[in-house]
Amino acid sequence: MKRFLLLIAFVLTFAGTRAAQIIRVEPASWWTGMVNTQLQLMVYGKGIGASKVSFTYPGVTLKEAAHTNNPNYLFVYLNIAKDTKPGTLKLQFNQGNQTLTHNYPLLARTNKEGAAGFSQADVMYLITPDRFANANAANDALEGVQVNREDPNARHGGDLAGIEKRINYIKDLGFTTVWLNPVQENRMPGGSYHGYAITDFYNIDPRFGTNTEFKNLTANMHRNGLKVVMDMIFNHCGSSHWWMNDLPSKDWINNNSGTYVQTNHAKYTLMDPHAAGIDKDILINGWFVKEMPDLNQRNRHLATYLIQNSIWWIEYSRIDGIRQDTYPYPDYDFMARWCREVQAEYPQFNIVGESWYGRSSASSWWQQGSALNKQGKTGLKTVMDFPLTFITSGAFDYIKEDRTGEGSPLYSIYEELAQDFMFADQSNILTFLDNHDLDRFARADDPDLRRYKQALAFLLTTRGIPQIYYGTEILMDGKKAKSDGYVRTDFPGGWAGDKTDDFTPAGRTAKQNEAWSYMQKLLTWRKNNPAIAQGKLVHYVPDGTGVYVYARTSGTKTVLVLLNGTNTERDVPMERFKQVTGTRTRGTDVITGKQLNISQNIKVPAKGQYILELN
Amino acid sequence: MKRFLLLIAFVLTFAGTRAAQIIRVEPASWWTGMVNTQLQLMVYGKGIGASKVSFTYPGVTLKEAAHTNNPNYLFVYLNIAKDTKPGTLKLQFNQGNQTLTHNYPLLARTNKEGAAGFSQADVMYLITPDRFANANAANDALEGVQVNREDPNARHGGDLAGIEKRINYIKDLGFTTVWLNPVQENRMPGGSYHGYAITDFYNIDPRFGTNTEFKNLTANMHRNGLKVVMDMIFNHCGSSHWWMNDLPSKDWINNNSGTYVQTNHAKYTLMDPHAAGIDKDILINGWFVKEMPDLNQRNRHLATYLIQNSIWWIEYSRIDGIRQDTYPYPDYDFMARWCREVQAEYPQFNIVGESWYGRSSASSWWQQGSALNKQGKTGLKTVMDFPLTFITSGAFDYIKEDRTGEGSPLYSIYEELAQDFMFADQSNILTFLDNHDLDRFARADDPDLRRYKQALAFLLTTRGIPQIYYGTEILMDGKKAKSDGYVRTDFPGGWAGDKTDDFTPAGRTAKQNEAWSYMQKLLTWRKNNPAIAQGKLVHYVPDGTGVYVYARTSGTKTVLVLLNGTNTERDVPMERFKQVTGTRTRGTDVITGKQLNISQNIKVPAKGQYILELN
Repeated sequence: MKRFLLLIAFVLTFAGTRAAQIIRVEPASWWTGMVNTQLQLMVYGKGIGASKVSFTYPGVTLKEAAHTNNPNYLFVYLNIAKDTKPGTLKLQFNQGNQTLTHNYPLLARTNKEGAAGFSQADVMYLITPDRFANANAANDALEGVQVNREDPNARHGGDLAGIEKRINYIKDLGFTTVWLNPVQENRMPGGSYHGYAITDFYNIDPRFGTNTEFKNLTANMHRNGLKVVMDMIFNHCGSSHWWMNDLPSKDWINNNSGTYVQTNHAKYTLMDPHAAGIDKDILINGWFVKEMPDLNQRNRHLATYLIQNSIWWIEYSRIDGIRQDTYPYPDYDFMARWCREVQAEYPQFNIVGESWYGRSSASSWWQQGSALNKQGKTGLKTVMDFPLTFITSGAFDYIKEDRTGEGSPLYSIYEELAQDFMFADQSNILTFLDNHDLDRFARADDPDLRRYKQALAFLLTTRGIPQIYYGTEILMDGKKAKSDGYVRTDFPGGWAGDKTDDFTPAGRTAKQNEAWSYMQKLLTWRKNNPAIAQGKLVHYVPDGTGVYVYARTSGTKTVLVLLNGTNTERDVPMERFKQVTGTRTRGTDVITGKQLNISQNIKVPAKGQYILELN
Repeated sequence: MKRFLLLIAFVLTFAGTRAAQIIRVEPASWWTGMVNTQLQLMVYGKGIGASKVSFTYPGVTLKEAAHTNNPNYLFVYLNIAKDTKPGTLKLQFNQGNQTLTHNYPLLARTNKEGAAGFSQADVMYLITPDRFANANAANDALEGVQVNREDPNARHGGDLAGIEKRINYIKDLGFTTVWLNPVQENRMPGGSYHGYAITDFYNIDPRFGTNTEFKNLTANMHRNGLKVVMDMIFNHCGSSHWWMNDLPSKDWINNNSGTYVQTNHAKYTLMDPHAAGIDKDILINGWFVKEMPDLNQRNRHLATYLIQNSIWWIEYSRIDGIRQDTYPYPDYDFMARWCREVQAEYPQFNIVGESWYGRSSASSWWQQGSALNKQGKTGLKTVMDFPLTFITSGAFDYIKEDRTGEGSPLYSIYEELAQDFMFADQSNILTFLDNHDLDRFARADDPDLRRYKQALAFLLTTRGIPQIYYGTEILMDGKKAKSDGYVRTDFPGGWAGDKTDDFTPAGRTAKQNEAWSYMQKLLTWRKNNPAIAQGKLVHYVPDGTGVYVYARTSGTKTVLVLLNGTNTERDVPMERFKQVTGTRTRGTDVITGKQLNISQNIKVPAKGQYILELN
C-alpha cells in the first residue's frame, strides 16, 4: 500500500509537536551538468508547504520555494550551476522548531550510450508489454491487480523479463528499434494492462518489473544493436494516481469540479480558423475517459514536473526516443516547450507524436517547421502517418475485378504520398500497417500471403520510419470491434505452458514460417541500406499497367520497386523509368535473388512485386 | 470561309512580283495609356516575315521585330510611351521594292466601367450560352456548323441575344454576377457547343453573336447591377484554330510531332516532391483530347499573345472577372505572369482558376500567398472548392437512418471547412453545388425540396463566393454518365416554340415555383448583407444533436445558421453558442420571417434549417 515509502530516502528529525513529514520528493534524484540548470523538486508530505527550505552546496542555489493552496506540497526550484560536483544535497525543511532533512542525490552523468533517436534507417517493433512474453510469474499479480488471460481486457502477466528473453528473437527478425507501450505504473482497479492510465510517473509498473530492470533491458537492447522507444502520456493520468487523493492544487486537473466533461475529439479545432472557442476548450480540457483525469499542463508546476519526468527517464535509462500519446490533446505551448527542452538536452533524440488524423494536412501541421502552422513552433520531429495507414489497410486486399489508374487502390497510396509537400520533414514520418489501437493488418487466413508480402514490401521500401506491431510476423490477427484487447492478444509461446511456441520455427505453421522468413529477409536487407536510409523517393503515377513503380535513390545506390495491384501478370515497359534507372541494365530482386534485365519490359506477377537493387 | 478577311483593315501596295500580304494583325487594335507600355503585334501573311517594319508616331518606338522559322509570321514589339496620343499608327512593311501599309488603331481608354472583380458579396450565375436562350435564329447555323437540339452534344442555338433578353430574369432572381462558359469562336466540325475548343481568340463565336454584341451585353449587365465573368482557356485551342494549318513555329504546340500524347491528368505531380519528371511533363504537355492541341506557353510569342488577348477582352468589353480553365495544365510560370500582368492593369479584377482537385491541400496550393507553395507566387486570387462540392453533392441527401457526430454527412462538411487553415485567402474561394462539368445537384424528383433548400441555405451562408448553375432554380437535373451534354440541357422557354416557358411563373410547376422563390428569397436577402459579404465564419463541431451550427459575423451583424441533418426534429441547447450570440435573445428567420427566442432551446425541423438574423 505505502510501497512508495520504500522508494525514497528520507530522514525525519522530530523537534516539535505538530510534525510535518516528507512522503515523496520527485524526481528522487537528478544529475549535475545538465544543459538546463534548473531543477524542480516536488516535495509532498503532510504540512510540508509551510516549511522554509535551506541548504548549503557549492554551485546550487535556491531559485524559488513555491506554495500551492494545498499545504502538503512544496515546489522547490534549484539552480545547479554547470560545474557543480555530484554529491548529496542536504535539504533542510524548517517549520518553527522542527527541521526535516532530506538527502538528495546529485548524480554524475556517467551513462553516455543511447539517446540516439531513430530514423528512416530503423524499423520499429511495437510491443504491448502485458501481451508479449511472461518470464517472471512472481510479478504477475501484485497490489490487488488480478491476472486473467481469458479476459482480453485484463492483465495477462507479460513483463520486461519476458521481453529481455526475446531480444535475440527481435534482433534475428531484423528490427533495429523496439517501442514499448507504456511501462510506467498503472495501479488501476481494472489493471490497465495497456499502460495508458499512469498512476506513478516515476516508477515502472511492478507487474512489468522494476526501474532497474528497465534500465538494464535498455542497456541490453543497446548491446544488441536495438534502440528503445518509451511511450509517454502527458494528457492524462490514471484515476488511481497517488495525487488524485490530495491534488497539489485545484487546477492540477481540468474539469475537476464534479461534472464529467468528455473530450469531443475534435482535433481539427486546433488548426481550423473557424473553430469556436468552446469546441477547442472541450477538446483540450475534456477527459479522454472517466478513468483518465485530464492533466492541466498550464499549471506551471505540473508542466515542469512532466518535462523533468521525461528527461529523468532518458538520463536514467538512456532510451533513444519517445512516443507521445494523444499529441493534440494537451496544452499546445507546453508540448512545444517539452520538445524544445528534451531536444536541448539530447540533440540526437527523436520524439514521435500520436498525430491521429485522417488527413495529412493536419498531421503535417504538427511537425516542426510546418509552413501552415502559424501558432508557433511545435518542436515535434516526427509525426504518425495515419492517413497512409487507413489507405494501406485495404489497398492490398484481394479483389475480384482489376482496377488500374486513378481510383485504383495503389493510386490511392500514390496520391497520399503526393501530399508530402505539406510535410516540413518527409523523412521523419512514422509509417505503419497497424498498431495497438487499430484492427490488425495481418490475417491468419491470408490464402497465399500475397497481400501480406506486398504490404510489407511497400512499408519497408517507401519513405518514412516503419513500425510493425508484434506478432504481425506470425500473422496474428484481431479486430477491435468488441474491444481493443482483441488486437492485443498474447504472443503464443510467451507464457510457460502455451500450446505452441511461435518464437521458434518449430512452433510456427508452414505459412507462419513463410511470413516470418519473408519479413526477416526484408528487414535484414533493409538494415543499413543507404538508398532506404537516406534515399530520395521518386514515384510514378500508377497507369494503365496497374503497377505502381517507385525508386529510392542515394548517391549511386538505387532500389526500384514494382507493385502489381491487379490479379493478372502485368508487362511493364521500362523506358518510362529512365530518370531513376539511368544507364543501368540489371536489377537483382531482393526477395528471390533473381536477376532481371531492366532494359526491356518486366513482367510483374499478379498481386506480386519486385524490389530490385540496380546494378 | 475567309470571314476574318473582313475583320481587319489592311492596305496592299503592289510594287514587286512576289507580293507579300497581310491576312491578320492581332490584336486588331490597342489602347494608349496602359500600365504595360509594350504591345506585341502578331502579323500574319504570306511571306510577311521577310519584311522590314517602320513607322513614325510620337511616343511609339519599335522594340523588336521577331521572326520565327515560319516566313508567314512577324512578331512586332512596340513600346507605347505613357503619354502617347490615340490615333492611327501607319505600319509599313517593306520587302525589296514592295511596301505594305497597315493602319493600326491606337484607341483612347474611354470605357471606365466594370473590371470590378467579384467577392463573397456576389453570387455567380453560370450559363452555358448554347443552352440558355436563343433569341436570334439567324445565327444558329453558320459556317457549316449544324444545329440539332435532339443531340445533347450538338449545337442548340443559344446566343448572347438570348442571354440579354433574360437579364431581368437573372437580376430578379437575385444574382449579382454572370459567368458565361466560353464565348470565343469554336468553329469546330462538331460545333463545340461548350466553347472549350477555341478557333479564334479574338472573336466571339458568330453563332453566339458578335464582339459588339458581347460588349453591349456586358454594358447592359453593368447597368442592371450585374457583373460579367468570361471563361478563358490558355491550355489548348481547338484543332480547327486558324493557325493549326500554318503554325508560327513548330514549338507553338506541345507534342505536335504526330504521335498523340494524352495528358495523364496527374495534377498532384506539380506539388508532389516525389514526382517523376516524365509524369509532370505528360501532365503539362500531353493533350487534353485529340481535338484540343496543347499550347506551349513557354514560347515567348505565344505567352505574350495569350496575355494580351485577355487584357484586350477586359479593356474592350470591361468584363469584371475571368474563370480560367484547366488551371494546373498550362506552364506554371506563364500563368503566374498572366495573373500578375492582369492584376497590374486592373487591381480590382478577380480571376478564378479551375483548380480541380479532390483535396484542398492541392487547391489551396494554387492560391496566391500559399504557405505550402515553394515554386513561386501563383498570383491567382481565387480557387475553386471542388472538395467541398464532392461532399455537398451527397451530404444533404435523404437518409434512412439518422447519423450524428463524427462521420455524419454534416460532419464531413464541417471537417472540410476546418481545412481552411491551408488557404491563404479564405474569402476568395468559389463554392458550388455543381457546374457544367458535374452531375447536376438539383433533382426534379426531389420529394419535398428539403435537400435543395438545405443545400442552398448552406451554400449561400457559408464562407466563399457561391456559384449556381443555370436551371438549378427550376430543378433542372442531369447526369454526365452518358455525356456532359445531359448536364447542359436547354432552359425550357429559351427557344421559340418550347413547350413551357420556365422563365415565367406560369410556365413552371408549383414545385419549381417553390424552388425558384426560395432561391430568390435567399439571394435577395444575401445581397449586400455585411455578415455574409465580409463576415467571419465561426462554426461548431456537429455533435449528438445532429445539427450543424455556424455563424457569420461582421461588426454588430450576426447571422446564425442551424442545419438539421437528421430525419427527426432536434432540440438544440443554445448556451453553447454564446461566443456568437452574445447577449442577444432574438433571431429572425430569413426564410419564414419567424421570430425565435435564442436564449432557450431551439427545435430545428427534420432535415430543416434556420437562418437567423440576430437582434
